Amino acid sequence: MNAMSAGTDAGLLAPTWAGTPVAAEVTDEAWLQAMLDAEVALARAQHAVGLTPAAAVETIAEAARADRLDLVALAHAARAAANPVVALVTVFGEVVAARDPVAAEYVHRGSTSQDILDSAAMLIGRRVLDLIAADLRRVMAALASLADTHRHTVLAGRTLAQHAVPTTFGLKAAGWLDLVADASVRVRAVAARLPAQLGGAGGTLAAYREYAVLDRGGPAATNGGTGSGDPGEGGLELLKPFAEALGLAEPTLPWHTVRTPVAELGAALQLVTGALGKFALDVQTLSRTEIGELSEPAGAGRGASSAMPQKRNPALATLIVSAARQVPAHALVLAQCLLAEDERPAGAWHAEWQPLREALRLTGGAAHTAVELAEGVIVHPERMRANLDLTGGAIVTERLNVALAPVLGKVRAKKLLTAASAEAADTGRPLSAVLAADPELSARFSPDRLSELLDPARYTGAAEALIDRALRRYDELGAEPRDDEKNGGTR
Amino acid sequence: MNAMSAGTDAGLLAPTWAGTPVAAEVTDEAWLQAMLDAEVALARAQHAVGLTPAAAVETIAEAARADRLDLVALAHAARAAANPVVALVTVFGEVVAARDPVAAEYVHRGSTSQDILDSAAMLIGRRVLDLIAADLRRVMAALASLADTHRHTVLAGRTLAQHAVPTTFGLKAAGWLDLVADASVRVRAVAARLPAQLGGAGGTLAAYREYAVLDRGGPAATNGGTGSGDPGEGGLELLKPFAEALGLAEPTLPWHTVRTPVAELGAALQLVTGALGKFALDVQTLSRTEIGELSEPAGAGRGASSAMPQKRNPALATLIVSAARQVPAHALVLAQCLLAEDERPAGAWHAEWQPLREALRLTGGAAHTAVELAEGVIVHPERMRANLDLTGGAIVTERLNVALAPVLGKVRAKKLLTAASAEAADTGRPLSAVLAADPELSARFSPDRLSELLDPARYTGAAEALIDRALRRYDELGAEPRDDEKNGGTR
Amino acid sequence: MNAMSAGTDAGLLAPTWAGTPVAAEVTDEAWLQAMLDAEVALARAQHAVGLTPAAAVETIAEAARADRLDLVALAHAARAAANPVVALVTVFGEVVAARDPVAAEYVHRGSTSQDILDSAAMLIGRRVLDLIAADLRRVMAALASLADTHRHTVLAGRTLAQHAVPTTFGLKAAGWLDLVADASVRVRAVAARLPAQLGGAGGTLAAYREYAVLDRGGPAATNGGTGSGDPGEGGLELLKPFAEALGLAEPTLPWHTVRTPVAELGAALQLVTGALGKFALDVQTLSRTEIGELSEPAGAGRGASSAMPQKRNPALATLIVSAARQVPAHALVLAQCLLAEDERPAGAWHAEWQPLREALRLTGGAAHTAVELAEGVIVHPERMRANLDLTGGAIVTERLNVALAPVLGKVRAKKLLTAASAEAADTGRPLSAVLAADPELSARFSPDRLSELLDPARYTGAAEALIDRALRRYDELGAEPRDDEKNGGTR
Amino acid sequence: MNAMSAGTDAGLLAPTWAGTPVAAEVTDEAWLQAMLDAEVALARAQHAVGLTPAAAVETIAEAARADRLDLVALAHAARAAANPVVALVTVFGEVVAARDPVAAEYVHRGSTSQDILDSAAMLIGRRVLDLIAADLRRVMAALASLADTHRHTVLAGRTLAQHAVPTTFGLKAAGWLDLVADASVRVRAVAARLPAQLGGAGGTLAAYREYAVLDRGGPAATNGGTGSGDPGEGGLELLKPFAEALGLAEPTLPWHTVRTPVAELGAALQLVTGALGKFALDVQTLSRTEIGELSEPAGAGRGASSAMPQKRNPALATLIVSAARQVPAHALVLAQCLLAEDERPAGAWHAEWQPLREALRLTGGAAHTAVELAEGVIVHPERMRANLDLTGGAIVTERLNVALAPVLGKVRAKKLLTAASAEAADTGRPLSAVLAADPELSARFSPDRLSELLDPARYTGAAEALIDRALRRYDELGAEPRDDEKNGGTR
Repeated sequence: MNAMSAGTDAGLLAPTWAGTPVAAEVTDEAWLQAMLDAEVALARAQHAVGLTPAAAVETIAEAARADRLDLVALAHAARAAANPVVALVTVFGEVVAARDPVAAEYVHRGSTSQDILDSAAMLIGRRVLDLIAADLRRVMAALASLADTHRHTVLAGRTLAQHAVPTTFGLKAAGWLDLVADASVRVRAVAARLPAQLGGAGGTLAAYREYAVLDRGGPAATNGGTGSGDPGEGGLELLKPFAEALGLAEPTLPWHTVRTPVAELGAALQLVTGALGKFALDVQTLSRTEIGELSEPAGAGRGASSAMPQKRNPALATLIVSAARQVPAHALVLAQCLLAEDERPAGAWHAEWQPLREALRLTGGAAHTAVELAEGVIVHPERMRANLDLTGGAIVTERLNVALAPVLGKVRAKKLLTAASAEAADTGRPLSAVLAADPELSARFSPDRLSELLDPARYTGAAEALIDRALRRYDELGAEPRDDEKNGGTR
Repeated sequence: MNAMSAGTDAGLLAPTWAGTPVAAEVTDEAWLQAMLDAEVALARAQHAVGLTPAAAVETIAEAARADRLDLVALAHAARAAANPVVALVTVFGEVVAARDPVAAEYVHRGSTSQDILDSAAMLIGRRVLDLIAADLRRVMAALASLADTHRHTVLAGRTLAQHAVPTTFGLKAAGWLDLVADASVRVRAVAARLPAQLGGAGGTLAAYREYAVLDRGGPAATNGGTGSGDPGEGGLELLKPFAEALGLAEPTLPWHTVRTPVAELGAALQLVTGALGKFALDVQTLSRTEIGELSEPAGAGRGASSAMPQKRNPALATLIVSAARQVPAHALVLAQCLLAEDERPAGAWHAEWQPLREALRLTGGAAHTAVELAEGVIVHPERMRANLDLTGGAIVTERLNVALAPVLGKVRAKKLLTAASAEAADTGRPLSAVLAADPELSARFSPDRLSELLDPARYTGAAEALIDRALRRYDELGAEPRDDEKNGGTR
Repeated sequence: MNAMSAGTDAGLLAPTWAGTPVAAEVTDEAWLQAMLDAEVALARAQHAVGLTPAAAVETIAEAARADRLDLVALAHAARAAANPVVALVTVFGEVVAARDPVAAEYVHRGSTSQDILDSAAMLIGRRVLDLIAADLRRVMAALASLADTHRHTVLAGRTLAQHAVPTTFGLKAAGWLDLVADASVRVRAVAARLPAQLGGAGGTLAAYREYAVLDRGGPAATNGGTGSGDPGEGGLELLKPFAEALGLAEPTLPWHTVRTPVAELGAALQLVTGALGKFALDVQTLSRTEIGELSEPAGAGRGASSAMPQKRNPALATLIVSAARQVPAHALVLAQCLLAEDERPAGAWHAEWQPLREALRLTGGAAHTAVELAEGVIVHPERMRANLDLTGGAIVTERLNVALAPVLGKVRAKKLLTAASAEAADTGRPLSAVLAADPELSARFSPDRLSELLDPARYTGAAEALIDRALRRYDELGAEPRDDEKNGGTR
Repeated sequence: MNAMSAGTDAGLLAPTWAGTPVAAEVTDEAWLQAMLDAEVALARAQHAVGLTPAAAVETIAEAARADRLDLVALAHAARAAANPVVALVTVFGEVVAARDPVAAEYVHRGSTSQDILDSAAMLIGRRVLDLIAADLRRVMAALASLADTHRHTVLAGRTLAQHAVPTTFGLKAAGWLDLVADASVRVRAVAARLPAQLGGAGGTLAAYREYAVLDRGGPAATNGGTGSGDPGEGGLELLKPFAEALGLAEPTLPWHTVRTPVAELGAALQLVTGALGKFALDVQTLSRTEIGELSEPAGAGRGASSAMPQKRNPALATLIVSAARQVPAHALVLAQCLLAEDERPAGAWHAEWQPLREALRLTGGAAHTAVELAEGVIVHPERMRANLDLTGGAIVTERLNVALAPVLGKVRAKKLLTAASAEAADTGRPLSAVLAADPELSARFSPDRLSELLDPARYTGAAEALIDRALRRYDELGAEPRDDEKNGGTR
């Protein structure tokens, strides 16, 4: 049965992440290992507060190897309890017992499925966010460089698919940078707050406490023993060492049904793919055959078609855009799962796992791909200039409008220019020619002045100063990289 | 690298489908094979219209074995072109060439990535829909039996989480049946219409035609040959044999950017999980500890907890609900991908694949699980009766209202009953006692009449006749199972 | 308070539908009227089966005027019961009672909020779908005409934002037509099945039955009366006349929690905006300044900018695309509301109303807008031709590939052409020139043959035949317009 | 036409917000006024940097009254440009011109539609977030009080719809509090960062700069004037006074296509409704007739049914849940609109407005409703206790398990308890009786010890300490309410 139903998770249908570093972090194997890591962290924490003996911890840690378990059997067994931890605990307990039956008594001691699975999810989330954060840093560096290098490279600003007014490619890159910086700040803030999960069956830590009493020789141990049976803080004292063992944040409360960490993680991921998706979408647009202002970096087979030898498709951008179209749907499911009834919901929790994995790897893949794209994108300033000139000056009619307004009044100026633009568009004549032929205009503006007014390169406003603002923000992010991460805003 | 990044796709995080029959139908391996199936079908179709030689078809068919290709390498290579077909064609061409270089010339002849991948997707969709349809038939049979068996089993109808009026469990089951019947009809209609994809690079079938000219000895063949070079219908004649070879419907047009089939498939899948999810949600509610009117079928480890020995969780229902919470998000992505620009979009197509796979297997798993649940659910009529009596008759105040209306007038009757209900709720006395103490009521209704009016079992309206309507519809679906499927409504 | 909190619903933020015919069909006032229409239909149905007296029906019908009720007060009062019907019934009962207290006893007789609100929703759904269907017919006619007219207008087929192979504008329009035809078929099928809702408080029709007994002089009437008290079919007999009075389909069962009609309506609407959105997206792309192959119809202020006099934005397409980006989210909410617990859910029903209204009016507005766009879009064949020539023949390298394959072998042919294309792209020389300079090629192909092979107009494959297939399907839809609508597939 | 198509926006289908304070903040009228507010703020900012004369500002400010404009005509006119600002500027310019033609020249000077509409959106977003933040403070205060008051009120913890282990109602309330605190922190952080929008047609501020030159007597003014024509910082200097005039944050860059503010606003809103929705869902569950542990506060007509006099529906909770089911879909659309091509997208921007409004008012209404619910919810500790006892001790089998483990070993202990629980469930006998009859158990545990082990109130773990942690966090939020808001994390 296994052979039939368990395939290879290679990402055949998900080239955005197939073969990228994130892929290995979120496989079934990686999740299984993360669950075992959580079991080990629990044993360590219980040892740290004076409960589980060191030898048992050692044995548990040595046994906690996912590659020694039958992953497929576990996955199938997960159906019985609707989660994989119940079966894992049984099997893992047996593995430990085979080494040392005493140690087996300390496996999953006082715990519940959700403590293990949620902690594993956060562990994986943390690893992936770290990958993403590193990739976003490289993307930002590349975009900052583009912004700086192209501060005087003029191109057509486009709105509603039409030439609007001139802008600079540097400012365009600065916009991408600003957006990626927003995403980066959010990723780092969320990463720093991802909490360990520890609450026990109902979120009261009761069984952890009960075992503490027992292990300290309390009444439960011997039905009338003589030990102190001190419950300590009743399980609370485990939170800190458990979180530390996992490298995660300590939660205020068990968050079995306080699902902010998952919802916020989803929101951060969709911000990343949204930011990268905007960049990629612009690359696609500007690399259209007729526009040709950007091209993707070349590479063996890169952008190839199975049919058309001439094709050099914007494949990297396409990978990113395809991720950006999927991640918000996963984030939506995660946000909806905030509605988790009772102390553990019958479905809302279970619906989180797969969307979380998909969102993590799509985002990780998109970030990895965006590094290639941002570092390699080829800029064609000459095509930008050629396109600017396509409309014979129509792209600066806004400027002419300003110039004419004090002379003709705002309303009349706009009418005149609208009519002239329409004439240019309809006849195919350059707008400059149409305007030069207008007696009213030629009476008031010398040919030189008209020519100056019609030069797109002279109408880029505050573009350069804006680039500097974006670069300054970027520099500050770099200089003080962890400021936002210190104080957990949301949790 | 492969070892690191390609995991096992066992469904560890998706117990709804892990190990169920659908799992094997949608693995990377299954998709790869389906793509090869499409390549073979193309060769067969070209042979059928007199082009590709039989021997080449034979060689291609024999070589088309996914298990002989390096799946992981292909998945990784897919990044270069943003789809897996480009690399597959190269590798598969080499495999065929190793057997027979002449046959290799006929691989992917005139084709394009999207023809292969879309056809593969529909092939897989068809297989999964067939599984789902079969499971839905079993679910319907079980629900029909419940509806029939429990036509007189009275329980509390509940609205806004409160007891409302009595109903019967048979009618409840009939409602589930009707909903699943809706989904089933839709699944079968959509399945029957899933089309093969064939259009060539730009959807004009041009290269197919060009090769037809070539293969028939036209000018392209020899730069001035003497053959007929008859282009036939220019590629059109391939549509029918290609679709037939795949067991799919023949499309009106290439649908590279006419994405109705994918969007409709998504909509059908979310209707299935929505229907099954409603059933499962009701099972969860009615199996609440305090309600206890239903339980899930027992089984080894079924519904177990890692912490609590007493637990018998509604695990099957939870698996179904968890799927129902995810599938609409996938369907949304598919619906949004209708906005596919140009002759092939740069991202919208690529974003379909993984959501489609996820939706298919979640739905397939949910349907499989629903069979177990519908066939095994345990009904506790005594708890239903006990719960009905909890409120001392408040559940039939609507009926009392009708009885009082002609005597007191509608408005005054409702006020009296609202007050009496509130008194009963606040004091904990049964409503019957409160009413019996009301002088106005006792003057007009004999104790016997009052007792009859307060009997929930006497106030189930047309429940039985409604059950019969639902069963009749179900019977008609069975008798004429394929009627809706003959004439493709949407396509 | 009213003055402050109730605004005007003019669509200031929704120009897609503002001021279009659909707007008036879905206002608060229209919904209120539709609820009153449902109350009247109920009275009529009860009269039709021999219950409610004709005079009472008459009074109820005359009183059922939304414009005489205080809409704002009703909307605010709706908070108490979480739906507007409870307050409406009270107020409407008083209005009728003021005319005739006896008639007031027959208002909302045996009914429940959901019967009224769901029936009203379907009534409005039906009206809007009829508007949409009519608009889609006009859109299809215009697209069919474009397809026919431009069967020989060659333009660049584009994939992944790059020129791919030639196609014809007629085929492009045929693709839009096919997609709109899919949507149209679905709209008409769903419209024909929209059911009336009638079930009473718990979906058993019990109170309807109880009143039937009462009105026919049964025991409830007089606590021991002598009339027949025949319950008839127990309420069932109301279904048909009630549905007929509303012009809606008769349901199999009350569908309080069998929400197929709403989910399917949502799915149909998103198919419509998806289809129109694809058309609009292509118009936007092709009207880009650098491409210029299409423009939107001109009109006063149409496509204007507040800043730039030259702008002629694709405003109609933008209105459509903006709707297409929103409707799937509404459809998702409706699909999720299939998970409706019990006999009436505490939230899932209530969450449907506003998304349904939004989806209806966005889709209605998009369809209305698409008529303008399809009938008015301006085609620029000369720009299509000029763009085709931009790459000096690269757009037909697929064809060259076919021609070279038998001579050089498939693999070598593709390599040669890939290299030549790259050289052309890098140097800016036309591909034709690069190829003519290639000794291998020039040895085998005469200049004339090469020139013929490089002519885009000679490489449109089966485009014309495909157009004819699409037009034939369109004609059949027109000839037999109601076939799909007769037999309700899903319900 | 207006009369037909413009209705009243009273929220008839949205009782969550109908008549609540948020309603008035987001009407068409309010948006129109906010756009005018943005125009006034622009004039003020231009005056502040020495451009527009004080008299013109005065005139513009006096004229900027939405109630004097024809809202419906403007909404309809918005179709021409696909946004309402173009028509508004024309009409508003005329209104100002009627007062003073000179002032009219300073209206919308250098501006673009998106500057006005985005700034208006943020203004409205800010107002609504302030309302929400205030309501969340009240909700938190009420929940904190519940947590504190009920620190010893024991009830059944429930997982997967089944009794799990005991917990306290105080801890349950602490969980709600923690979640609402998360949402509150996020709302305040996002509110503090909502930026004004100012960029001009292409985001370069070019026309603002051009007018600055003109107004300072530069060359554009007179085609050769003598003034300084100092462009200042080229428009940049307007950012700060413009943002201050609106009470919004100053952006780093114009964010026409850097849509973080909108996406983050959506994410914050869905976190709010998710948090409140969890609370409401729990109230619904616990107020089920069979559970009866909570009820909603009573009130005139509150929770009434149109059919059933006895009904006291959880109407407030239903209003909140219905909002929570809708808002994530709106947030999804906003997140997707991050993919905004070029300098202004053709649809992605336009698709934001209505979802943003809907999300704002649904969330505002939900927060308002949650105040009523949290302050008024009625707790029934006696029902909690009665439900705890329903299973005769099964709810503490986890504890027994711990007690038995050292005696029998973990595995055997769990088996024994699983069997005993099953027997209790199947026979209906209390678990305590089944266990007392077990020879192995009775040999080891005295009746008193068994009785103590089976007391749910003795097994609430660290519940009280956890409540204190949550209250401490809440106190800290209150003491230092604005800390998180000072330093804009994301922007």
